[in-house]
Amino acid sequence: MSEFENVVFGNNCSLGKNINIGKNSVIGNNVVIHEDSVIGENVRIDDNTVIGKTLMKAANSAMAKDLELEGTKIGDNSIIGTAVVIYRGASIGKKVLVADQAAIQFKTSIGDFTIIGRGVLIESNCTIGTKTKIESNTYITALSHIGDHCFIAPCVATSNDNYAGRDKERFNHFKGVTVKNGGRIGVHATILPGIIINEDGMVAAGALVTKDVPSGKVVAGVPAKLFGDVPENQLLKNNL
Amino acid sequence: MSEFENVVFGNNCSLGKNINIGKNSVIGNNVVIHEDSVIGENVRIDDNTVIGKTLMKAANSAMAKDLELEGTKIGDNSIIGTAVVIYRGASIGKKVLVADQAAIQFKTSIGDFTIIGRGVLIESNCTIGTKTKIESNTYITALSHIGDHCFIAPCVATSNDNYAGRDKERFNHFKGVTVKNGGRIGVHATILPGIIINEDGMVAAGALVTKDVPSGKVVAGVPAKLFGDVPENQLLKNNL
Amino acid sequence: MSEFENVVFGNNCSLGKNINIGKNSVIGNNVVIHEDSVIGENVRIDDNTVIGKTLMKAANSAMAKDLELEGTKIGDNSIIGTAVVIYRGASIGKKVLVADQAAIQFKTSIGDFTIIGRGVLIESNCTIGTKTKIESNTYITALSHIGDHCFIAPCVATSNDNYAGRDKERFNHFKGVTVKNGGRIGVHATILPGIIINEDGMVAAGALVTKDVPSGKVVAGVPAKLFGDVPENQLLKNNL
Repeated sequence: MSEFENVVFGNNCSLGKNINIGKNSVIGNNVVIHEDSVIGENVRIDDNTVIGKTLMKAANSAMAKDLELEGTKIGDNSIIGTAVVIYRGASIGKKVLVADQAAIQFKTSIGDFTIIGRGVLIESNCTIGTKTKIESNTYITALSHIGDHCFIAPCVATSNDNYAGRDKERFNHFKGVTVKNGGRIGVHATILPGIIINEDGMVAAGALVTKDVPSGKVVAGVPAKLFGDVPENQLLKNNL
Repeated sequence: MSEFENVVFGNNCSLGKNINIGKNSVIGNNVVIHEDSVIGENVRIDDNTVIGKTLMKAANSAMAKDLELEGTKIGDNSIIGTAVVIYRGASIGKKVLVADQAAIQFKTSIGDFTIIGRGVLIESNCTIGTKTKIESNTYITALSHIGDHCFIAPCVATSNDNYAGRDKERFNHFKGVTVKNGGRIGVHATILPGIIINEDGMVAAGALVTKDVPSGKVVAGVPAKLFGDVPENQLLKNNL
Repeated sequence: MSEFENVVFGNNCSLGKNINIGKNSVIGNNVVIHEDSVIGENVRIDDNTVIGKTLMKAANSAMAKDLELEGTKIGDNSIIGTAVVIYRGASIGKKVLVADQAAIQFKTSIGDFTIIGRGVLIESNCTIGTKTKIESNTYITALSHIGDHCFIAPCVATSNDNYAGRDKERFNHFKGVTVKNGGRIGVHATILPGIIINEDGMVAAGALVTKDVPSGKVVAGVPAKLFGDVPENQLLKNNL
């Protein structure tokens, strides 16, 4: 394991073929890095984490297709916590934090300076912007797009399947959620398939969002209704 | 580790006594397979997964009893993801997918072709039917029974203890939830102890279900009320 | 690994410097115990668990400060499940159960006889009392205080950031939740920042708690309103 420049490995690491790890990175114990992964410089990867996992295909999955996926990329100065799972075909930016027990699936990208909280799941085919926070245990469904400077509180649920898994027609309607730059979602909120939260839109804690959220507006309730304006001093443009 | 026919092991696997693994199975790195486990043919088990975990007994647990449990069984052609925990006394069918970071406890069975999503917890003493999907992060409480062709969306919560852990009387009333064949539950819904969702019953996203759901009916809201009928073209009998 | 008295280790364990493990403890496979950890007697730690993890500092974290943390402590007769993550600076009492895939962060203490359920996250700077149960998948935000004999059902969400991550002012307002002795919270409830649930207060399933809960009262709904009194026979003083 001396092929990399000044990289420290814990015990029992498993390294696949054709991987690269930048200088000064620190890899924990029992870490598995699969084939073709490219890890930047000064990256920290904690114990029991798996990088570059290959796709599982269920007999019964709506998402199972043959995919040609690139090796996982992790940018310089990022920190990957303990027992994280990152798939082949995921791309993580620079100075990102992916906290313990999170998972990031294939064809998903995470922008620079973003924080992915403990236990978070970001499914496949998502884009997450820069300087965004997705807090503990939140679930981002496949095909979602989260912008820059967004804040998604803990335990938020999203969905992409209005047809609830029945009827072949649903394959034409899978639609993730979209949160535009500066959008915010409160703790334990629920966001239905295809919903767009526009710039600086805000969802209150516990809300069930069934309609798009206008720019700069707050919605609250079950189902969520317009509740007011995001205060001027909370707008993204006044907090950059 | 050459005692099994054409089985591929990753690094650092730990194998207990008296286990069997069918031919052409592929076992990842750091996988632990405890005593008496029986793994079928052509099974994939990914990195850091633990099969056949023995019961933990808390000083203070409502469920702690001495149990004689059989070894874990995993059927042919099933896929078990990364960092999954499956207990001794669990039985997994054929062509099942158990996704990453899920857990399946003792005396629980999972039917053929069923998908258990990422991070899902299926507690003890549950039965899950065939061709059912339980999506990411959903929690199925002990003593629950889910039928065939059910769809349980992500982040659903269930419960089995109406007495909220106080008062010895509660030990007589633990009651899981029941979802009959073709029943469906929307994202982030909550299902109270003992509730029955009858055939083709459907719970809307975010609903709090405090009464049984009649066959073929949709319920919605907090608390959930009757909302309408499941459309004819969504009934299970028209989608087999 | 024979330096400890009658301690059994599984395969591939990694032990840091200056750790102690009491007699008759049983350590699973692939367990990582970092520097300065102190494990009591007759402790069970299951496969793939990490004890004594050091703090991760994100470029963009609200909590990142240099901390001098003591080594992790785990009391006698406690059981730590599979794939658990416990940070340096956490202190676990005696006869505690921390179930699989849970995480306990730094500067947090867990009292004797308490049960921390599967997948639970207890963040930093929390105190959890004795004989309390925190059930599967519940999330306890940083800076929270949970008393003795509390019951927190599965899938409960808490929060500590009323400013939703925007505006520097918020650093002065982070405030966890408080549950006083005998307080109870139902499945899938949501508790907002700074809320106090007083002695024997009870939150119904699915409630969104936006105001403090008076002692011995039940609240329910979204947002939660006073619903009635906790029955006399359910009061803590009648169940000790």
